[in-house]
Amino acid sequence: MTINFDRLNDRLQKLSEVGRTTQGGSRRLALTDADKQGRDLVRSWMLDVGLDVSIDKIGNIFGVLKGSKNKKPIMMGSHIDTVGNGGHLDGMLGVLSALEVIETYIDQKTVPIHDLCVAIFTNEEGARFQPDMMGSLVHAGGLSLDEAYATISNDGKKLKDELDNIGYLGDMECGSILASAFLELHIEQGPILEKENIQIGAVENVQGISWTSVTIKGQANHAGTTPMNMRCDAAFAASLLSVKVREITEEIGGVQVGTVGVITPKPNLINVVAGEVHMTVDLRNVDEEKLKLSEEMFATAMEDVRKQEGVLIETETLARFEPVKFDSRISSLISETASELGFSNRPMNSGAGHDAQMLARLCPTAMIFIQSRDGISHNPKEYTAEHHLKAGAEVLYKVIQKLDNKQVI
Amino acid sequence: MTINFDRLNDRLQKLSEVGRTTQGGSRRLALTDADKQGRDLVRSWMLDVGLDVSIDKIGNIFGVLKGSKNKKPIMMGSHIDTVGNGGHLDGMLGVLSALEVIETYIDQKTVPIHDLCVAIFTNEEGARFQPDMMGSLVHAGGLSLDEAYATISNDGKKLKDELDNIGYLGDMECGSILASAFLELHIEQGPILEKENIQIGAVENVQGISWTSVTIKGQANHAGTTPMNMRCDAAFAASLLSVKVREITEEIGGVQVGTVGVITPKPNLINVVAGEVHMTVDLRNVDEEKLKLSEEMFATAMEDVRKQEGVLIETETLARFEPVKFDSRISSLISETASELGFSNRPMNSGAGHDAQMLARLCPTAMIFIQSRDGISHNPKEYTAEHHLKAGAEVLYKVIQKLDNKQVI
Repeated sequence: MTINFDRLNDRLQKLSEVGRTTQGGSRRLALTDADKQGRDLVRSWMLDVGLDVSIDKIGNIFGVLKGSKNKKPIMMGSHIDTVGNGGHLDGMLGVLSALEVIETYIDQKTVPIHDLCVAIFTNEEGARFQPDMMGSLVHAGGLSLDEAYATISNDGKKLKDELDNIGYLGDMECGSILASAFLELHIEQGPILEKENIQIGAVENVQGISWTSVTIKGQANHAGTTPMNMRCDAAFAASLLSVKVREITEEIGGVQVGTVGVITPKPNLINVVAGEVHMTVDLRNVDEEKLKLSEEMFATAMEDVRKQEGVLIETETLARFEPVKFDSRISSLISETASELGFSNRPMNSGAGHDAQMLARLCPTAMIFIQSRDGISHNPKEYTAEHHLKAGAEVLYKVIQKLDNKQVI
Repeated sequence: MTINFDRLNDRLQKLSEVGRTTQGGSRRLALTDADKQGRDLVRSWMLDVGLDVSIDKIGNIFGVLKGSKNKKPIMMGSHIDTVGNGGHLDGMLGVLSALEVIETYIDQKTVPIHDLCVAIFTNEEGARFQPDMMGSLVHAGGLSLDEAYATISNDGKKLKDELDNIGYLGDMECGSILASAFLELHIEQGPILEKENIQIGAVENVQGISWTSVTIKGQANHAGTTPMNMRCDAAFAASLLSVKVREITEEIGGVQVGTVGVITPKPNLINVVAGEVHMTVDLRNVDEEKLKLSEEMFATAMEDVRKQEGVLIETETLARFEPVKFDSRISSLISETASELGFSNRPMNSGAGHDAQMLARLCPTAMIFIQSRDGISHNPKEYTAEHHLKAGAEVLYKVIQKLDNKQVI
């Protein structure tokens, strides 16, 4: 074990106390006072370690340790904002492990060849300002600064004003720091590693996402007096569609997932046939062709349901992202390194969105996953055992060493 | 046309103005000030007509015209309380048509053989105090006065106090007035007569009702990171059950109806597999054996879904009423009479509950239905064209004449 786990763990604890909720979670919604406190704390650690800290115009924070050869930095990092009542690892682990990796170089009086950089990206969660992954998206040139600045929060505030208010409206141009590679250590936020009792996931892809809002309009009617053949039941139509979404995932198979998470009938009364239902459909796959196929099958299912029940169906696309392919050389390096360290490992996909997928537009990128208990995150119950945290940070350190020694990039 | 439709229509209009809502409906929740105003108004009309008015201990109002032979009264009636934003006919039509029938006797200087009685039953709607049909239920001995008195309203008031407050805590023992027959004219509150273009429904049965609250417990999970085979999706389970309810109605066929009106997933978010769903199932049939069969089939469906998705399912019976059979001699008399008057007619079932079903425990009883536009009631849009109102009241009058002349009872 090379990294100083106690130091890393101590920082994780201290950061989790900023914005602590009564349920034991953390609440550091982007660009609130709690986010400022968290940023101030981590920035102070970066400065203590001796990094050169700069802040860009979207509030992303970069801490750089100079390397020996003036090469483009190897960047690591993630985010430290949280959802309304989030856990203590999602994002924070990636940032503080990166800091720990760099401090380990310093402890060992080893000067890396490349600059090493830890990045904290603004508003990854999207819980207060949408879209999510905003800081890394702007960094990668996927969203203009003006558009980002004009974003209005759920509580009615303008993003630029809030950046200014908390003192993180930086002056560095976005995208100034171009990395030679990017690595993000993160908890899986899913159950696969735990169920398979595997320690390290070498993430090869991020799933593409297709979110659709569906409004079904039928005819509200008395549940006692309306014969079945005279019904136009929006709740039945929604149920049938929901069952068809499951059938679509079974037919496509593999890693295809499909979820109907929202079903809101009106008037939602026991003795009234629902006149309208709002529902959502979340389809994901790492293969764009299969994701498209799932969308086409869902469109066919809607047409079938429309005809069968005589309802009207309106749809709106809420989000559509193509799958992201990470750099296979780096993900293979993660697997090899984990094996050398004696950690069980497997290649895997990310089902959630991460800053790394934005960085993948700019440079060779991959992610390291470790287990999260019961697959739970965005919740105070989010938890990962210490030996997994250690394993993840150690793999990160060793992979950075190999990258720095030009094994890949 | 024997009855005075203008007089009936004028009273319907005047009563509808009591508790008028901004949407044009009526709001006379049981035992509120608006209910008192409605009661006072209709009672004043009863007294104007010359009826002997009495009030029983549950607040039911009875207006009696003495007949020539001191025989048990032929009773007609319904209720004048409404739901929160109800129409102008549901209940009121039955009461005011009954009054019109009696006044027609008086206009024609005809003394009936039997006493004729118009009844206004307390709290038919059950919108403020539960159960519904309370006044007629207590009248029929199906609920004790003490239990009824102890009932607490949605707004926290005791029923007995509220009866007293509005001046309708009468002193007559409940059930004192025993009728030789009971007739209730009512709008269908369903679409059948309108769809079939038929004027008069001779109601033979009231459907039995089985209401179940179903709670499905699964596992809340991330919609992106949780593979399909690791899910325990409460919203999918609810959807599948909802589809199975439809299949049950198709398999049993006939007048079997089944409705899932409430589906409430938690957390009801686009990217979270629902951890829990509350749903309701409303099953109805006029045949008790078939109603039981539908319940058994639903129990089997729940067991299948439980096994398939690995969810827990808890149920609670919210209501269970056996079907009610009306007196076939009276329903036949309604059909015959309608035909004689030139009104198209058909035997039918009631899908909704009515005071008549409680009276059926005591004496030969039936109901007359007329169309309600689009099957809508419990809504300001409730509407029935004048010629249907006339036809209904005229049939009521003629059937009462025949009953009084001992054609049946």
